[in-house]
Amino acid sequence: MLTRREIDRTVGAALDEDAPWGDLTADAVIPASARASADLVSRVSGTFSGGEVFAAAFALVDPECTVTPAAADGAAISPGQVLATVTGPARAVLTAERVALNFAQRMSGIATLTARYVRAVEGTGARIVDTRKTTPGLRAFERAAVRAGGGFNHRFSLSDAVMVKDNHLGVLTAAGATVTEALVAARARLPHTTHLEVEVDRLDQLDAVLAARVDTIMLDNFSLDDLRAGVERIGGRAVVEASGGVTLETVRAIAETGVDVISVGALTHSAAALDLGLDLVIDGGAEPAASAASPTP
Amino acid sequence: MLTRREIDRTVGAALDEDAPWGDLTADAVIPASARASADLVSRVSGTFSGGEVFAAAFALVDPECTVTPAAADGAAISPGQVLATVTGPARAVLTAERVALNFAQRMSGIATLTARYVRAVEGTGARIVDTRKTTPGLRAFERAAVRAGGGFNHRFSLSDAVMVKDNHLGVLTAAGATVTEALVAARARLPHTTHLEVEVDRLDQLDAVLAARVDTIMLDNFSLDDLRAGVERIGGRAVVEASGGVTLETVRAIAETGVDVISVGALTHSAAALDLGLDLVIDGGAEPAASAASPTP
Amino acid sequence: MLTRREIDRTVGAALDEDAPWGDLTADAVIPASARASADLVSRVSGTFSGGEVFAAAFALVDPECTVTPAAADGAAISPGQVLATVTGPARAVLTAERVALNFAQRMSGIATLTARYVRAVEGTGARIVDTRKTTPGLRAFERAAVRAGGGFNHRFSLSDAVMVKDNHLGVLTAAGATVTEALVAARARLPHTTHLEVEVDRLDQLDAVLAARVDTIMLDNFSLDDLRAGVERIGGRAVVEASGGVTLETVRAIAETGVDVISVGALTHSAAALDLGLDLVIDGGAEPAASAASPTP
Amino acid sequence: MLTRREIDRTVGAALDEDAPWGDLTADAVIPASARASADLVSRVSGTFSGGEVFAAAFALVDPECTVTPAAADGAAISPGQVLATVTGPARAVLTAERVALNFAQRMSGIATLTARYVRAVEGTGARIVDTRKTTPGLRAFERAAVRAGGGFNHRFSLSDAVMVKDNHLGVLTAAGATVTEALVAARARLPHTTHLEVEVDRLDQLDAVLAARVDTIMLDNFSLDDLRAGVERIGGRAVVEASGGVTLETVRAIAETGVDVISVGALTHSAAALDLGLDLVIDGGAEPAASAASPTP
Amino acid sequence: MLTRREIDRTVGAALDEDAPWGDLTADAVIPASARASADLVSRVSGTFSGGEVFAAAFALVDPECTVTPAAADGAAISPGQVLATVTGPARAVLTAERVALNFAQRMSGIATLTARYVRAVEGTGARIVDTRKTTPGLRAFERAAVRAGGGFNHRFSLSDAVMVKDNHLGVLTAAGATVTEALVAARARLPHTTHLEVEVDRLDQLDAVLAARVDTIMLDNFSLDDLRAGVERIGGRAVVEASGGVTLETVRAIAETGVDVISVGALTHSAAALDLGLDLVIDGGAEPAASAASPTP
Amino acid sequence: MLTRREIDRTVGAALDEDAPWGDLTADAVIPASARASADLVSRVSGTFSGGEVFAAAFALVDPECTVTPAAADGAAISPGQVLATVTGPARAVLTAERVALNFAQRMSGIATLTARYVRAVEGTGARIVDTRKTTPGLRAFERAAVRAGGGFNHRFSLSDAVMVKDNHLGVLTAAGATVTEALVAARARLPHTTHLEVEVDRLDQLDAVLAARVDTIMLDNFSLDDLRAGVERIGGRAVVEASGGVTLETVRAIAETGVDVISVGALTHSAAALDLGLDLVIDGGAEPAASAASPTP
Repeated sequence: MLTRREIDRTVGAALDEDAPWGDLTADAVIPASARASADLVSRVSGTFSGGEVFAAAFALVDPECTVTPAAADGAAISPGQVLATVTGPARAVLTAERVALNFAQRMSGIATLTARYVRAVEGTGARIVDTRKTTPGLRAFERAAVRAGGGFNHRFSLSDAVMVKDNHLGVLTAAGATVTEALVAARARLPHTTHLEVEVDRLDQLDAVLAARVDTIMLDNFSLDDLRAGVERIGGRAVVEASGGVTLETVRAIAETGVDVISVGALTHSAAALDLGLDLVIDGGAEPAASAASPTP
Repeated sequence: MLTRREIDRTVGAALDEDAPWGDLTADAVIPASARASADLVSRVSGTFSGGEVFAAAFALVDPECTVTPAAADGAAISPGQVLATVTGPARAVLTAERVALNFAQRMSGIATLTARYVRAVEGTGARIVDTRKTTPGLRAFERAAVRAGGGFNHRFSLSDAVMVKDNHLGVLTAAGATVTEALVAARARLPHTTHLEVEVDRLDQLDAVLAARVDTIMLDNFSLDDLRAGVERIGGRAVVEASGGVTLETVRAIAETGVDVISVGALTHSAAALDLGLDLVIDGGAEPAASAASPTP
Repeated sequence: MLTRREIDRTVGAALDEDAPWGDLTADAVIPASARASADLVSRVSGTFSGGEVFAAAFALVDPECTVTPAAADGAAISPGQVLATVTGPARAVLTAERVALNFAQRMSGIATLTARYVRAVEGTGARIVDTRKTTPGLRAFERAAVRAGGGFNHRFSLSDAVMVKDNHLGVLTAAGATVTEALVAARARLPHTTHLEVEVDRLDQLDAVLAARVDTIMLDNFSLDDLRAGVERIGGRAVVEASGGVTLETVRAIAETGVDVISVGALTHSAAALDLGLDLVIDGGAEPAASAASPTP
Repeated sequence: MLTRREIDRTVGAALDEDAPWGDLTADAVIPASARASADLVSRVSGTFSGGEVFAAAFALVDPECTVTPAAADGAAISPGQVLATVTGPARAVLTAERVALNFAQRMSGIATLTARYVRAVEGTGARIVDTRKTTPGLRAFERAAVRAGGGFNHRFSLSDAVMVKDNHLGVLTAAGATVTEALVAARARLPHTTHLEVEVDRLDQLDAVLAARVDTIMLDNFSLDDLRAGVERIGGRAVVEASGGVTLETVRAIAETGVDVISVGALTHSAAALDLGLDLVIDGGAEPAASAASPTP
Repeated sequence: MLTRREIDRTVGAALDEDAPWGDLTADAVIPASARASADLVSRVSGTFSGGEVFAAAFALVDPECTVTPAAADGAAISPGQVLATVTGPARAVLTAERVALNFAQRMSGIATLTARYVRAVEGTGARIVDTRKTTPGLRAFERAAVRAGGGFNHRFSLSDAVMVKDNHLGVLTAAGATVTEALVAARARLPHTTHLEVEVDRLDQLDAVLAARVDTIMLDNFSLDDLRAGVERIGGRAVVEASGGVTLETVRAIAETGVDVISVGALTHSAAALDLGLDLVIDGGAEPAASAASPTP
Repeated sequence: MLTRREIDRTVGAALDEDAPWGDLTADAVIPASARASADLVSRVSGTFSGGEVFAAAFALVDPECTVTPAAADGAAISPGQVLATVTGPARAVLTAERVALNFAQRMSGIATLTARYVRAVEGTGARIVDTRKTTPGLRAFERAAVRAGGGFNHRFSLSDAVMVKDNHLGVLTAAGATVTEALVAARARLPHTTHLEVEVDRLDQLDAVLAARVDTIMLDNFSLDDLRAGVERIGGRAVVEASGGVTLETVRAIAETGVDVISVGALTHSAAALDLGLDLVIDGGAEPAASAASPTP
């Protein structure tokens, strides 16, 4: 789902942003002939994501760089573990370093947080899904990281599934239609392949929505008791999505109410970067230097 | 420093990402003739940033949208405060809503965190600066947010200032040159307008670096005592930058050692989005709906 | 669903293709100060589509052009009817003419053909839908034209709904799983908002597919009798899509079998351009000239 | 004339359109390790075009795909003939399939129709040429297909040759100049390498145009008798182009009037896609499946 | 021929190049509210070109800038003459200044040099034309400047006219064909609108080329005597182009040999920028400052 | 500093400009199977630059072309010297020829002129630097050529260093501040890595500027005596840049005044292209043809 074309386009733009007319330091300090080899190493435990993206950063700076992967996307990783090895011209390796790490740290951070949520609900049958609260320009990358962590994706964009919320319903019913009629009418205007999800805030809204035969009902900011009541009332007639107030502390209890899907904005908008470093050896002569652990203004 | 052209390009790409072939829900549910008006409202206290970017999102979807700003970039804001008002075709307002909020929340989050660091060092003379640890594709936006929060920017990219780190020095001295000679030689290869910053890990490295007359010396992961000793040794012959282990708890003490600049990667890589919402009224008929506070998968 | 940004991007590229360094003829022959006014006129009966796109072509060549629409997308039009009027600098009007007509003719052709299919099945409850057999680069435009003609869209791309075909099923079952098991497993890997459609070639495949609870079943190249049998067997448990061998002659009978959806590749891959012309007056002095009816190599 | 850069750009954009964030079905159903091999097979007789473009689609999705051509552009092909063979990762082959077929079918359709016109005028000395009535964004591709079919191209765009039509002449002569004077004046403003073609509607316009020494005269919608008279009057002093009312039924008679060039808008705006299919074998285990013959919404 | 779209694209890219993340100086020094007004003034005599491009630079930085033209493209200008006046936010005016001047100086330099050549051949009937030796990325701009100076354009690119040179002829005749046969064969493969020009190095090559009825013959590096002989031999059967060794000193004599066209690579590859300056007043308070005359590293 | 990505992007755009839909001549005249080999040869003495760019032009047209470099960037070259050899399909070699030469000639011209200035100041300790007066879109290329010639770069753009000129100072001091106060205030608003350069027109301005501790002081259009006085007064407290009235005749004397940096706009805005040619052999059968020495409209 993360295409090669998307990787090349977005990672290439990040390189252009970070070194629009080259890496002054590398050019002034490193001989053109110097070679480097570097290990991508995890400093902590977590879930890896972004291996293919990491590799692309080096290849886009200089096709002579080669990257050998040592961990698959979605793998559990531990401190000190080598995740990939890159070799190539030292200038190119140094120039690509920060962008490569940036993507790998961000994607692994999302995968790691997702995996925590997934483990927290293990055995309940509920799936953890992301939201549209992703970083502008990086949605496909952050979605791939959620999958690497064992989570699932929600709709990709406003263009590929429908989510009817309260202010939509307000408009729909303003002219006198009932909620049920309004939803039936909306469905009739949509492609038959379009998933129709409706957000409800209170239990008493459920019957009108169910009568319209929608695909998913989002129970927004419901108490645990109300979630249980909602699941029961819906009775398998729609996918049930819980949303709002979801944390690592609350997610298990929410999952145990029987909901099918729990959407967690935090997966993408609040995941901390995972601490990965690049242990670099230039020319075979220098000591390994943990460049990512050092500040890199 | 954040150009109109950059805003249009990047916000436009975010809109294409979030609604590549339009907003299915708005198109199915909202009449083409419906109008909306919406207030951007702060749910919490903080520092605002991103007003111009917020406005651009709506204009890029439909030039008929108009946005009236009510708070300047860098303004302290309080819960419930209206920061901007947008009016326009309801479909366009709904389509642009998430992208507009996304930028404003992210930028205000960075400005707010920066302002906390800036207040923490108030009166010490130290400035808080960002790093290259920004989101790929959004550096200019995140840098503008740091400035809105009262912070300063570090070099923008690898192309506009030099930062010599330990692995660079390893290469420079591998052929037998001293550190001083190596730095003098590097300087001689650089444009005269290029700022030369050198990172040191230990006090005993300082003299060799000072002998080379560099512009800034970064004291990396120094204890408070060593920072004080470093500041004294440098004695105004270079800008002194502290880096590593900087948190809201430690930053005041670091600043009081007399360093000039404190670089904080967290400003951009760890700022939480600020909770801003869009209170939306469609057609004048519906109740205000706090759409940003609701989950938006 | 056809965004302003998409129109500007694609129509702009078409103008660059058709006049990369301007219109030599207009520049050599028409004074810069000459004005033109032109009516977009239908030469035949049909269904109009592309009004906004037609207007954009002129504005993109020269913002001084103004286009006044006289027919809405989806309107039934008759020979001689004026659909829009453009006025502006004569050079700009001449330069944009072919591209503007090209889009309007193509989109109206698709809308007209679609409307014929839609009328043919009127009252049966079946909807006419398009396919992915669109012109490369113009999908959003051709999809909008289908909607203008009263048809519906199928999935937009490979990224927003799943269509399992026989060769997919072959792979799924190669390792020993039954079709039902394979489909259940595939569903489990998909986002909950993803519509799952399965293509079947024979009636005896239906039970295995139905057991997996898919969203749509496509009955591919079924006889009318088999379609009827299929509809009965499915019994409302999935949307039923008929496909293959659909023509204006056969579509009514297919619709009367009770299927929900009839997909017609011809809507986009075989619609003839609708004969629209631009009746042009330059400077108020010349006679109207039906330029579109003349050959335009 | 169809450059590698143009192929990569336009086919790449088509792939982005058809699978912006990947092929959901292939990803959910086909193992990453599965391999596929597929034959591009003609279902009918015709003239092939688009081999290089077909190959590019697969390579752009995944460079590990290899395509072996088995028929040259312009080759006469017969039902069942294998035109090319692709092998590679099954997911990539499936993802690129529709775009690759789309271009090959469209280009072969144009080549096939062109070849019919070319055969119809064989021996007369007239050449069949295309017009600017091409699909927006695909002109270079459709022009290449015309050449593959034995036809010739007309001017590529408004920027590379001049075509003076009646409304241009109206402007030119409005200020009192004669047609001859106006054309001489226009010629004097043009680059010496610019071909000057003038469209005439009636025989009595010829002398004034001939007096201006133009390069090509287009006889627009002339009867066969008038065409013969026109050819005779022009007497080799300009290329003679016939245009208007050209069909496969009329073209031979038109050619036999002695005109040099016959322009046919239908070559590009009305050619039906040629029925080519992709016979696909995944993993060596499944039966060949004629996927292109099946509906592909 | 220089389209608005081309201007916006290329001038926009130049602005991005010159101020990728804004104008640090203006941002640090000039209040956001300051206004500026500036006159584009000629320091020398010459021929003006680039007025529309100059204006676009300011509008692309900030649409609030307004530019009032005071001289038309192609106008003879004298020292001290005001060519245009810009007013707007001071920061925007300063940011766009160098790019705007850069285009105007370059285009006016080309127009001025061209005008000198054109005056030198006045009355001879020969036209001065440019070549493909233009600055990469700026061909349309430099061609427009040549026209502003009274010159004419040669073919725009390799795609819109044919120029057969000696190494082409070597290949054409290698298989045994005569030059005449080879040229006739080449013509038969070209679109009828394609101008066929052939370069010859010696008088004795002329007959073979003339026998093939080509459109233009370029006499390359001919002496004046040979040019005269060539013109006589060709006798109006083709356009005669002289090329090679053309300077302001030699061009009159070359023109008097009777050639039709004289191509001068120097027009674009050797024109010096014309000295234009921007006399700037900020806020109404400061003295005019001739910023373009000052060095602007 | 000239990245591979920048080369591919800009050279690719130049190829698109010069052959948007291919090379008509090569396609009509050269068999697809013909091979060519060509030497890039210097016709004159000078300094080479652009080897990597020259090679990229051929590879971007057809990856089957291979280029073997025979001279390094910055090498002194003499008439007749072979600088690189390209082999590949004859059509591709011919199509890329002009663009490849164009870049190599332009870059070598700049390197050659720069080297002359550099030799002129040899032994004085002054460095020769470029300015922002580069060709729009080609700054990175022209800057690389300056370095190849032994010169140095000034700031790359308005975004990476500050240059305060008289009209800036006018604004800064308009509100009552002294020049010193104004510069101190400006510095306080800038990133610590930003180089602050101030332009002065008269000796009596120096003290106020020196009091503000700026990084570089540009002495603009100073007499030699005033330059000497300025260098003495500054006394090592800032880099001293001389600017204005710099020619090959005056530069030595300027350098001997003791200034550190001499900026020369002419390096990029007035360098003549170096005369390099491509000696081409097609198919092994034809004689070498010096195509670059011939006119190439």
